[in-house]
Amino acid sequence: MTDINTPSPREIAAIDIGSNSFHMVVARIVGQSLQIISRHKQRVHLASGLDEHQNLNQAAIQRGLNCLAMFAERLQGFEPENVRIAATYTLRQARNVHIFLKRAEGLIPYPIEIIPGTEEARLIYLGVAHTQPDSGKKLIVDIGGGSTELVIGDDFNPQLAYSKHMGCVSYNQEHFKNAKISKKNFNAAQLAAQQKIESIASKYQQCGWETAIGSSGTIKAIREVLIAKGHSDGVITAKRLQWLEEEILAFKNSEELSLDGLSDDRKPVFAAGVAILSGVFKSLAIKEMIFSDGALREGLLYEMEERFRHSDIRTRTAEAMAQQYHIDTAQAERVRTTAEAIYAQIETHPSLAKSELQPLLSWGALLHEVGLSISYPGFHRHSAYLLRHCTMPGFNLEQQTVLATLVRFQRKSLKLEEMPVLSIYKRKHLYPLIRTMRLAVALNGQRTDTPLPKLKVKANKEEWTLTLPSNWQHDNKLLAADLIKEQEYWHKAGWQLNLDPSPHEPD
Amino acid sequence: MTDINTPSPREIAAIDIGSNSFHMVVARIVGQSLQIISRHKQRVHLASGLDEHQNLNQAAIQRGLNCLAMFAERLQGFEPENVRIAATYTLRQARNVHIFLKRAEGLIPYPIEIIPGTEEARLIYLGVAHTQPDSGKKLIVDIGGGSTELVIGDDFNPQLAYSKHMGCVSYNQEHFKNAKISKKNFNAAQLAAQQKIESIASKYQQCGWETAIGSSGTIKAIREVLIAKGHSDGVITAKRLQWLEEEILAFKNSEELSLDGLSDDRKPVFAAGVAILSGVFKSLAIKEMIFSDGALREGLLYEMEERFRHSDIRTRTAEAMAQQYHIDTAQAERVRTTAEAIYAQIETHPSLAKSELQPLLSWGALLHEVGLSISYPGFHRHSAYLLRHCTMPGFNLEQQTVLATLVRFQRKSLKLEEMPVLSIYKRKHLYPLIRTMRLAVALNGQRTDTPLPKLKVKANKEEWTLTLPSNWQHDNKLLAADLIKEQEYWHKAGWQLNLDPSPHEPD
Repeated sequence: MTDINTPSPREIAAIDIGSNSFHMVVARIVGQSLQIISRHKQRVHLASGLDEHQNLNQAAIQRGLNCLAMFAERLQGFEPENVRIAATYTLRQARNVHIFLKRAEGLIPYPIEIIPGTEEARLIYLGVAHTQPDSGKKLIVDIGGGSTELVIGDDFNPQLAYSKHMGCVSYNQEHFKNAKISKKNFNAAQLAAQQKIESIASKYQQCGWETAIGSSGTIKAIREVLIAKGHSDGVITAKRLQWLEEEILAFKNSEELSLDGLSDDRKPVFAAGVAILSGVFKSLAIKEMIFSDGALREGLLYEMEERFRHSDIRTRTAEAMAQQYHIDTAQAERVRTTAEAIYAQIETHPSLAKSELQPLLSWGALLHEVGLSISYPGFHRHSAYLLRHCTMPGFNLEQQTVLATLVRFQRKSLKLEEMPVLSIYKRKHLYPLIRTMRLAVALNGQRTDTPLPKLKVKANKEEWTLTLPSNWQHDNKLLAADLIKEQEYWHKAGWQLNLDPSPHEPD
Repeated sequence: MTDINTPSPREIAAIDIGSNSFHMVVARIVGQSLQIISRHKQRVHLASGLDEHQNLNQAAIQRGLNCLAMFAERLQGFEPENVRIAATYTLRQARNVHIFLKRAEGLIPYPIEIIPGTEEARLIYLGVAHTQPDSGKKLIVDIGGGSTELVIGDDFNPQLAYSKHMGCVSYNQEHFKNAKISKKNFNAAQLAAQQKIESIASKYQQCGWETAIGSSGTIKAIREVLIAKGHSDGVITAKRLQWLEEEILAFKNSEELSLDGLSDDRKPVFAAGVAILSGVFKSLAIKEMIFSDGALREGLLYEMEERFRHSDIRTRTAEAMAQQYHIDTAQAERVRTTAEAIYAQIETHPSLAKSELQPLLSWGALLHEVGLSISYPGFHRHSAYLLRHCTMPGFNLEQQTVLATLVRFQRKSLKLEEMPVLSIYKRKHLYPLIRTMRLAVALNGQRTDTPLPKLKVKANKEEWTLTLPSNWQHDNKLLAADLIKEQEYWHKAGWQLNLDPSPHEPD
C-alpha cells in the first residue's frame, strides 16, 4: 500500500523493534475502531549482533538504523502523540543501547520505548485479543527472535503473562552452531525450551484455556509449511510438529533446508523456532494451536486508541498498586494535589511537552509512599525499588525509572549522583519534577486535612521561590522548620529555594 | 544482689548495649514466669563516641568492651542459649562496628545481635507490657541515648512501632553544644523532636491509647525530679514538664544543673531528654504519662522464655509474610522439606551449632519466592531485597541478612563476591546452607506433587555428592538437565557437585 498523506481521519502508527524483524503498522481511527492501512516489515536480525558481552555490534546497529530511517520517511508529518515505538529483547539486553538510541534520535523524531518482557507479553495479548473473533479463555504464544511470550487471558484481560529469554535467533546461535542440523542439536534446543518454562508450566496447565493461539513469524512460517503439505486448516498439532521435526532432520544444514511453503529468509532460524514450539507444546501439553496475525504492534495501536479515549491503563495500574500496598491514600492525594498545583505554575524545559511528564508526576505522587509497606527507615529507597522492579502494566522501562527517581528523591539528601541513566528523557527534564515532588511532600509533612497556606511558586532554573502568606510562620512553626531543612538540602545540591517571607530561626 | 551460682532452676540473661548505658538483667524461670534476680547497669555513653563520619572512637569502644568484660564475669557458666545480647542505635550506626564486634568476641562468648529500630521498639513494648499490670491499649515511649521508640499496642501485641533517630546523647551533642543551656537551644531541640515524629503523629493520635507509659533512664530521671518536688504520684504531665523546663532554663550550663532528685551522671543529657519528651508530649497531645521499669532487656528475657516454650515469634513472622506476599505455599513446603532432609544428612561447620542455623534455612525456604510479588525476572534478587529490608518481628539484622543471602543465591550464577559482610556468622557457615537451598530449589523445579526420587547427599567441604536411584535420569530428563546446569554453576564458583550415577547428555 502506498503513502496516504491525508491526515483525516486520524492516523496512528506503531513500530516494533524486534530481535528478528522490525515491523511498522499504520492505522486509521474510524469511529471507535482501527482500520489498518499499511504494514511494513524488515528482517534486521538485530539479536544476531549481540556479542558475548551483550554489546550490539556496529553492523547490527547500522541495519537497525537503516530500517528506522526508512520507516521515518513513511511517518513524515505524524505528530508525536500518534506514534509509538517499542523495543523488546535485544535492546533490553544490549549494554550499549545508548549508542543505538542516541543515533536513532537523529533519524526518527519519536521516542523509542524499551518495554519490559511482561509488558511485551501483555501488549501481544492485547494485539491478538483485539484481532481474534473468539471470546473465550486464550493461551497466546509468541516466539520472537530473542524472547518468547506466554500469556493466558480472558477477553481483553491477561491473567498470566511471562516473557522468557528464548527466541529463534538466540536459540539458533546457541544450539545450531554453524547452521548444523542434527537430532542432538534439536533435542538440546527443545529441552532447553522446556527448562525455560519449567517453573511456570504447572501453573499454566492448572489455569487452562479454550483456544491456543500462536503469533509471530516463527509460528506463521510453521503454519505455511503445514498448509503447503496439504493441511489446509493451518492448525498446528503435536503430531504435525513431530512430522515437521522429522522433515527438518532430513537436512544436515539449515542453508540446505528446503520445505514447500518456507521462505528463504526464515530458513536460518526455522529449526530453532520449531524446537522451541515443540518444547512449549510438550511442557504445556498443548493439543492444537491456531495462528493469529495480531501481535505487539497491534497491541500498541489499540492502546494508543484507548488513551485517546481517556482510558489510560497506567492510571488503573497506579491505582491498583496503591491499593495492593495499602497506601495512605488521603496523604497521597494531598501530595498529588499540591504537586499538580505547583507544576501548573512553573515553566518547564521547552523541548519536552509538559503534558508528557505531568502524568508521571501525578502517578509518582500517588505512589510515593509505596515503600512504607517494606519498612519506614529509608522508605523512599524502598518506594524506588518497587517502582523500578514491579510489573506495572502500561509503563515502559524509562517511565518506571522516572517514577522510581521521583520517589527516590522525595525527601532527605539530594544525592543526585545516584540519578540513573535515562534514555528518552534528560536529567534536566526531571529536576523540575523532583523539586515539585519535594515541595509537595514537605508542605504536607503534617499529614493532616488542615488546608495548606495559599502558596505561589516561581521557578527560575535552579532557583525557585515559594511565596507564602505574610504571617505563615506564626501558625506553622513545624512547617517552617521543615522548609528551612529543605532549603539546606537544596543548597547542598547546588539548587536554591527562597522562602518569601523568609522564616526566622525559632527563639 | 550478689552472684547466685546454683544453675537450677534455669537462669537466663539479657544484655542491652544501649547508646547511653549498658544493662544486664538475669532472671530465673519459675514455672511459666520470670523472677528477676539481678540487674546491672553501667553508663558507657557509647553514642558520644560517634564522630561526624559515624565512626566509633577508640575510647568509646574501650569503655564498651570494659563493661562487657565485667558482665561476662557474671555470666560464667551460662550456656549460649540462655543469653541474648542486643545492640541498638549506636552500633547500628557505627561504620566501624566490625572492630567492636571482633574485639568483643574475645571477651564475651555470646553473639552480639544488632537489632533494627522497629525490633527494638517491639521488644521494649514486650518488656513494658509484661511488667505492667494494666491490660488496656498502651502508648509506650522510650527515650534512649541515640533513638526514641514509640509504640502503641494492646496486651502483648504492638500495633504501631517506630524508632526515630533522636536520643538524649545525640540531641545533647547537636543542640546543647559545650553544655550550654538556653531557651533557644531548648526550643530548637524540642522542635527538632517534633519534626522527627511529624510524619507519624497524626497516625498515633488517630490510633489512640488508654495509658501512656514512659520507660528508659531519661523518663525515670524526670519522674524522680518530680517526686522530689513533691509530686509523689510521679506522673508526668504537660504542665509539670513546663515547670521542669523553666527550672532547667534557670541554669546556663548543664554542668551547673542542680535539681533535687537528679543524679550527677544524668545531668549532661538531662536537658536534651526533657526537650525530646516535651516535643513528644506536644506532637502526640499526651496528657499524662506514668513510668515503667520494663525495657528492652525485659523484652529480650520474655522472648527467650517464650522460645523455650516452642513459641518462636519468628515462625509467626515468616508465616505471616508468606501469606501477605501470596507465596505458593505448596512449592515453598516442597522446597523446605527437601532442604531440611538434605541438611539433616550433612556435617556442618563444627564451631556453629547446627540447631542455630537450621531454622534460618527453613524460614528461608518458606520465603524464597517472596520476590515473585514484585516481578518474575530476577525474583531471587527481589526476595533478597524484601528479606533484607522488611520489618520482620523477632529477627535481628544479621538473621535478616542471612535469610536475604540464602534466597539471593537460590538460583542462577553464584556471584559469591556479592555476599554481604556478616558479623556473627562467617561465610563458611553459610555456604552449606546455600548449597542445600540450591539443591532443594533445583530438585523441585517442576513444581509438582510427583514425589522426588530417593536421594542421598554427602558433603565433603566444597565437594558434594548427590546420589539418585540408578534409573533416575530416564524418567526425569528435565531434572537431569537442571542438575547438569546446577553442576556448571557450582563449578564456576569453585565448588563441585557430583551426580551419582552421572547423567549423560541428551542424544
